[in-house]
Amino acid sequence: MTIENLSINKSFGGWHKQYSHHSKTLNCTMRFAIYIPPQASNEHKVPVLYWLSGLTCTDENFMQKAGAQRLAAELGIAIVAPDTSPRGEDVANDEGYDLGQGAGFYVNATQAPWKQHYQMYDYVVKELPSLIEATFPVSDKRSISGHSMGGHGALTIAMQNPEQYRSVSAFSPICNPINCSWGQKAFTTYLGKDKSNWLQYDASELMKKATVYVPAKVDQGQDDSFLVEQLKPEILNAAAKVSNYPLVLNLHEGYDHSYYFIASFIDEHIRFHAQHLT
Amino acid sequence: MTIENLSINKSFGGWHKQYSHHSKTLNCTMRFAIYIPPQASNEHKVPVLYWLSGLTCTDENFMQKAGAQRLAAELGIAIVAPDTSPRGEDVANDEGYDLGQGAGFYVNATQAPWKQHYQMYDYVVKELPSLIEATFPVSDKRSISGHSMGGHGALTIAMQNPEQYRSVSAFSPICNPINCSWGQKAFTTYLGKDKSNWLQYDASELMKKATVYVPAKVDQGQDDSFLVEQLKPEILNAAAKVSNYPLVLNLHEGYDHSYYFIASFIDEHIRFHAQHLT
Repeated sequence: MTIENLSINKSFGGWHKQYSHHSKTLNCTMRFAIYIPPQASNEHKVPVLYWLSGLTCTDENFMQKAGAQRLAAELGIAIVAPDTSPRGEDVANDEGYDLGQGAGFYVNATQAPWKQHYQMYDYVVKELPSLIEATFPVSDKRSISGHSMGGHGALTIAMQNPEQYRSVSAFSPICNPINCSWGQKAFTTYLGKDKSNWLQYDASELMKKATVYVPAKVDQGQDDSFLVEQLKPEILNAAAKVSNYPLVLNLHEGYDHSYYFIASFIDEHIRFHAQHLT
Repeated sequence: MTIENLSINKSFGGWHKQYSHHSKTLNCTMRFAIYIPPQASNEHKVPVLYWLSGLTCTDENFMQKAGAQRLAAELGIAIVAPDTSPRGEDVANDEGYDLGQGAGFYVNATQAPWKQHYQMYDYVVKELPSLIEATFPVSDKRSISGHSMGGHGALTIAMQNPEQYRSVSAFSPICNPINCSWGQKAFTTYLGKDKSNWLQYDASELMKKATVYVPAKVDQGQDDSFLVEQLKPEILNAAAKVSNYPLVLNLHEGYDHSYYFIASFIDEHIRFHAQHLT
C-alpha cells in the first residue's frame, strides 16, 4: 500500500494530516484526513474515532469546522475522516447533490455502473482501518461517529460490526433511509429495487433486531430543516424500544443541520467515546 | 440604516447571524457576521470583539473555523466579523489574491479608481461599530483582533484609536507592511507612491511612536511560510522596545499560517480580551 502525504498542520500540539492512497476496494484514488493527538507514539498507541461526513462533504469539513481537535488532543484520541464517496473522472456520477460523488451512503453498490467503485461500506469497515492501523501510531480501539448521511453510516456500520467498534454516535443521522427520499433514491440506484436488500443499511431496521449493543448516542436539532422529511429520529427511538437498545437520543431546541450544531456538542461526543476507548 | 438578516444558526446556546447592509462609507452592499452569546439581552449588553480576517477571506472563515464561539459563549462576549473589502461588480478589482476584492488592507484608499469604495479603515473604525451598537444588545466595550492582513488591521486600528479599544491581539500579523511585498503592492495601489502616507498604516511604525498603550498580544507560528518575507514580527518586537510598549509576542514551534493555528490558540486570545472587556 502506497500512501502519499498531501498536507500537514500542527493543531493543539498534535498534527492534522491529509493523505491520498489507491483504494483497492473503491478502485480509485482516495483522500482522507487524520488528526494525531500529541500523546501518540509507537510506544503509546492511541485509540481512533472514525468520522463519516454528510452529503457533499469531503475529508475537510469536519476537520475544519467541528472544533474536535481541542478535546481529542486533551484526551489522546486520534480522529480519521474519510471522503464521502469514491472520486475521479472515471467514477460514475450524478448531477444531484444527493447521489454519486459526495454521496456514497456507506453501502456496497450492487448495480451497474455504480458497483465498480461505490463500495464505501467495505472501505470504511475493512480497508481504511487496516491502512490506518498499519501506518499510524494508533491502537485497534475504534469508535465511529458521523453527521446526516454519515450518521446513518456510523450507526449501520457499528451495529453490523459490534465487535469492531466500542461506541457509536451520530449528529442528525438519516435514521430510516428506506422511508425517506434521500435514502430511497440512493438505495434504488446503488442496491436496486428489491427492498429486502436495503434493510441491512437501515439503522432503525438494524436497531429493532439488535441483540448486541454498541453504546450509542444521537443528537438532533429541532430546527433542522431536514428533520421531518429525511431524518426521522422518532423511528430510531421506537426501534430502540423494541430491542431494549440503550440508545441515548437528545433533541436540542433551536439547533439546525449545520456544523454550528455539531461544534456546539462535539465535546459531549468526544467524551462519550473516550469513556469507551480509554 | 437598513439591515437584512441572511442566515441564523444556534451555536453554543447563542446565535451566529449573517447580515447585509448598504455601507455609506464603502458605497456598496456589505455582509458581516455576528456571534451573540446566550447572556446578551437589552437588559444585559455584552462587550464585542471585532475580528478582521486575512487575504481572500470573507465574514465566514473565522466563524466557521476558529472555534471561538465555545469560550465566547462561556464568557459572554459577542464577536463581529466584517468582510475583508468592499464587494460587487461595480467595485474595482484585481486578478491577484493580494489586491482588490478580498484584500482591502483596512486602509482608506486615496488613489483612483480605488478610493470610490476602498475605505475599510473608516468602515471598521466608525460605520460598523455604530451599526452594531445601534442594532444588537452590545455595549460600547470593544476589543479587536485579526489574522495576517487582519492582524495588521487590528494592530493599526487599535493603536490609532486607543480610546476606542480596550485590547488588541493578532495571529500572524503583517507587522511591517511598508517593508514587505504584500504591503508595498497594496499601499502603492491604494495610497500612492509617497511613502510618508503609508506610515499611519504600519503597525511597527505606530508602535515605535506609541505613547498610549492598548494591551497587545501577538501569536506567530514558526513554520509559517509567510513569516520571513511578509510578516516580520521581529520588527514589531523591536518597535515595542523603542516605545516601551507592553507587547506580548509569543512564537510557536511547528505552527503554520492556517486556521489550525488560530483554533489552537483562540481560547488564549478570548481570555486575554475578556480580562479587559468584562
